[in-house]
Parts: sequence; structure tokens; C-alpha cells
Amino acid sequence: MPELRKDPVIGRWVIISPERGQRPTNFPNPPRSVDPKYCPFCPGQEEQTPIEVYCHRPATTSPNRPGWQVRVVSNKYPALRIEGELLRASHGLYERMQGIGAHEVIIETPNHTADMADFSESEIYEVFRAYQHRYEDLARDRRFKYILIFKNDGEAAGATLEHAHSQLIATPIVPSRIADELTGASRYFDLKERCIFCDMIRQEIADGSRVVTEHTDFVTFCPYAGAFPFETWIAPREHRAHFGDTNEAALRGLAGALRDALQRLREALNNPAYNFIIHSAPLGERYSEYYHWHIEIIPKLTKTAGFEWGSGFHINPTPPEDAAAYMRRLEVRAVSATA
Amino acid sequence: MPELRKDPVIGRWVIISPERGQRPTNFPNPPRSVDPKYCPFCPGQEEQTPIEVYCHRPATTSPNRPGWQVRVVSNKYPALRIEGELLRASHGLYERMQGIGAHEVIIETPNHTADMADFSESEIYEVFRAYQHRYEDLARDRRFKYILIFKNDGEAAGATLEHAHSQLIATPIVPSRIADELTGASRYFDLKERCIFCDMIRQEIADGSRVVTEHTDFVTFCPYAGAFPFETWIAPREHRAHFGDTNEAALRGLAGALRDALQRLREALNNPAYNFIIHSAPLGERYSEYYHWHIEIIPKLTKTAGFEWGSGFHINPTPPEDAAAYMRRLEVRAVSATA
Repeated sequence: MPELRKDPVIGRWVIISPERGQRPTNFPNPPRSVDPKYCPFCPGQEEQTPIEVYCHRPATTSPNRPGWQVRVVSNKYPALRIEGELLRASHGLYERMQGIGAHEVIIETPNHTADMADFSESEIYEVFRAYQHRYEDLARDRRFKYILIFKNDGEAAGATLEHAHSQLIATPIVPSRIADELTGASRYFDLKERCIFCDMIRQEIADGSRVVTEHTDFVTFCPYAGAFPFETWIAPREHRAHFGDTNEAALRGLAGALRDALQRLREALNNPAYNFIIHSAPLGERYSEYYHWHIEIIPKLTKTAGFEWGSGFHINPTPPEDAAAYMRRLEVRAVSATA
Repeated sequence: MPELRKDPVIGRWVIISPERGQRPTNFPNPPRSVDPKYCPFCPGQEEQTPIEVYCHRPATTSPNRPGWQVRVVSNKYPALRIEGELLRASHGLYERMQGIGAHEVIIETPNHTADMADFSESEIYEVFRAYQHRYEDLARDRRFKYILIFKNDGEAAGATLEHAHSQLIATPIVPSRIADELTGASRYFDLKERCIFCDMIRQEIADGSRVVTEHTDFVTFCPYAGAFPFETWIAPREHRAHFGDTNEAALRGLAGALRDALQRLREALNNPAYNFIIHSAPLGERYSEYYHWHIEIIPKLTKTAGFEWGSGFHINPTPPEDAAAYMRRLEVRAVSATA
């Protein structure tokens, strides 16, 4: 059973999630290119995954059989487990909690070799719809405080299977990074009665030097104090705390914006491994006036070393202005949502 | 010129440190095994590095010539630069500061292929002495608030040269990770009037399940909420805020303790890449009652992926008790300081 443990000094929770039967020194091997015949995410191998909890498929096809376009299943090797109660305990200085949560995999396409940057806008839209659907379902579980949706693409970014997929993890506490964002944003709101992200987006659009692409409802830019080279954010122009409250038209525009950003990053950096993460308000603050949801895309180009782990400081070798200027100039095949 | 930029939401400073003349999309190639003939850290190639700022060498040898045992030079490609003033400026929401600091390299041995785990205790002791010496010298510079000493060993841990070396970076602000530790530790002190690290060390020794080795002045253990598998700390039993205030006898004991830990990790994990970091009180709080210096060793076994970057949560697949038990049982050739 996984366990959550709290660092007594910095207060950060860590998931201790041993895989059963593993020796403590066995670590995952680098992912191999799997023959689609044996890929658990390919059509025809549906029985290799837990049963589907959401699926976008024609009504004429059967659950857990081929014919689907997007398919969501529980992770076979979950970091947190859905069964159980939120028991907390302490021992001297230390606090722990049962590792309750949800860990799901969104299989984004039936095509083993397709890359999200090449999806059509409506294919990306269907992936977002799957995110929203699973989010709303899990949001009803009162044990959860936060649901993080993210994608690891490429081995260096932590992906263990090459078939395009993203993940969702629901946690019984608000993660420290999100808590830091909420604290900073609410402090600003107390002072100014404005959303700091709204102000940042306005300043970025007015300045223009870090903007990659402007879309109807979204803007893509490299953040001023980005910790990673070519870090790229996509944020809605209008204030909205929660990704789940993006309507259909905006969600289709977001699909175009994400495709545009992924194509530019691929072109600029020769198909880098990357992570993207949806930063959204926690479950209890869906209509927050001070938090503003957005997507953060982090290409995996540098190694995190002793200085970063020891200090929390990151060294970014590419000024965000240079990264944005470089990406702006690229010709990409995407038709942006404004076209 | 490098620049420090502050994230307007979470308040974290980032170092934007472009290398001159590089295209924005050029990233460092993986380090190659360098023929010692061309290694800038090998004796005989001293002119390939900036001049030495500290050296342990017989009085009969000349500066910047062979004959040294430990040699410290400025980093040729510094993340922060020593020249200049701490100018701060803002633009709308954004804050920045000139990238002032120091970045030095401690060349630990003249032997191109030697591994710190195989150094003699007195060789490691001389490396620590070099750390202390450079620390005291840089501590006089009033522009600096913190000095971080760390080692990246192996490509996966971010090392770009294989010749054994560690690094020191002096920063004009207290890094966020250290600030978090100080906040947590001082909150505990306010409540209990005790150092939280002292209490933790007492609890670890009494419990024993996470202890790897007990030495005269130090204890080596896997922390309760370690974020990384086989994360291992070495902490002084007695309260001391600052690494610089470790006397000669204790420093020799520390050399034995570090060698013992590095040998156990190498044996357990088949020579892993690793980082170690000296966590010490900031310059202004050298005699802090609530901070307790220690070394954190992080073997590089897992990849940091979207979930970790997005949430600040880490998933550790090896319970610290299992890692400690495994390392305790190993036979290592080190003669511990208590022997």
C-alpha cells in the first residue's frame, strides 16, 4: 500500500510507493520501443489494461474492444490507490497518511506511432474532453483535494511507454507547488484586488517580447522567470480559475493553441522530450478570483543537478525572450485557431 | 551577463545565464570521456583553467603547476559572475537583479580516474578543508547571502567532466529551498525551543530502522520522507548550524562517514550517478539555534517527470527503511571512524 509521508522540516509530502515484489535496488529499465503487437495501449490489446473508465468511441462498438478514439483506464501500477480511507497517523516527529488517490492513463489515440503535435485539432479536443470528463467524475470523491493532469512525452521526460498518453493523479492534499502558487496569487489579490495571472498576461501581450502566438481565447508565451529553457505557457486571456470550466468553443481553440506550441517546440528543438502540466485551481476553489488556470510545457533539455536540488534555484541558459523570438519566426504547419 | 529573475507568483528566483555566442537551441552535449592528456583538471593542464584561488600542495611546488593534491579555481563558465554590483530593477510585475555571485570548482584529486569513494580519509579531509577555506574567504563578501557546496558525479547527475570535482556557488539571496528549511525549523523552535534536526536525529538513533551507520560524531540515515530512492543524509550528532564550524577531529570523522556512505551506495546500486549537497545555515545565521547542518546524498535513479514538476510531489519507490536495511547489511571496505 502506498503511503504519504510529510517532511517534518519543509512540510512537503512525499509518496512512498513500493512496487510489490521488487527488490529495493531494482529500478525501472529505460522504456523500449514496443512492437505494437504487444503494446497495452494499442487496439486489440484492451484486455492488457484495467477496464476503461471513459471512452470516446462510436455507439456501434463495444467497451474494452477496438474502435475507440480516446480511452481512459486506471494505471496498472498506480502511485496512489483508490481503495481505503484517509487514515492519518504520527510517530514522534513524523506524520503519515494512507496513499489514497486515483491514477489514470488517458490513451490519446489508437495509432501507436502518432505524435500529439500531428493530431488534428478535433483529436486534441477529444483528449481535453476526456480530461474534463474524468476530472468531473473524480471531483465528486470527497477524499480528494487536487487533481493533476499531465503528459510525459519521450524517455528523458519520464515516459515509460511510447504510445501517446497522458495521466491524471488525484491527491488527498493540495500539492506544495500548487499551494505556493495559491499563496503568492492570494497575497497579490489581497493587495491589489486583481488576479496576478490576468495582470501578467496583459503585460506579456503589451510587451510582446515573450509572446509566441496570440490566439482568439489564449496566448502562448515564455514566462519571464521560466526555470527551464524554452518553457512555454498557454493561458486563457479571460479570467478563469479552472480548466474544467472551458467551454466547447474555447476548448477547440485551446486544441489549436497546444498543437501550434508543440509543433514550434518540435521544430525549434529537434523533437525534444517534454512534459506538459495543467495548472488549475484546487477542488475547493473552483471559482477562485485570484487563481488562473494555464498549461505549462517544459521541454527536457537540461539535467537537474546538485545545485538545483540543493537550492531550489534553477539555471536557465536560454533567456525567455530569445526562446520566444526563435519560436515566433518558425513556420509551422498548424492553422492557428484565429485563422 | 547572467541575471536573476523572480517568479512573480511563487517568488522563486531563477538564474538566466546565457552562454555567449550560443544559439538559443544549442544545449550542452553529453560529457565525453576525455583523454587525460586534454583534461583541464589534470596536472600539466593547469593553464586551461582560471588561476587557482586555493591549493593544497607541498611548499616546494609552484602555483598553477603540477604537484597539488586539491586545487580550487573559478568556473570557466560561471552561472553567476563575481564582478559588479547588486543592481535591482523592476518592470511592471517583474523583478530582476544582476547575476552577481561566485562559482568555483574544487578539483578533488590529481588522478583523472579516481573516485571519491576510493579516496583515503585524509584525501577526503583535504577536500573538506578546501571547502571550508573557500567558504570563509567568500563569506567576507557582503554581497553574498548564501554559499552552496555540492558535487555532481556521473552524467545522469549533471556532471560535464568525469575528473572528480565538486562546486561552490555563492548567491546574493538565500535560495528558496534553504528558506523553506529555515522557516520550518524556526517555526518548530518557536513552539518547542528545540532544534528540529536534533530531535529528528535522536528519534532516528532510538528507532534505528532508517540508520545506515553510526559514527562517533555523525550518523548516516535515510530520511523518513526522502523524496528520492536511497536518499541518504549524514548529520552531526551535536547541534551545529554551520559546516564551517566543524573542527579538525570531527572533519576527519566526517571524511570516514562520507566514504562509508559512498561505498555503500556504490555497492548497493552498482555505481550510480549521484549528487551530494551540504545544507548549512545562511551567512547571516551562522550560530542559529534552530538550523542544523548536514549532507544530503541523492543517487540518481529515477526521472523527474510531469507529476513532480507540476505538483512538487515526489514519488519514492523505495521505502527509506528498506534502503537503510539494505545498505546496513553490505560489507564495505571502509574502516569507519569508530573502528
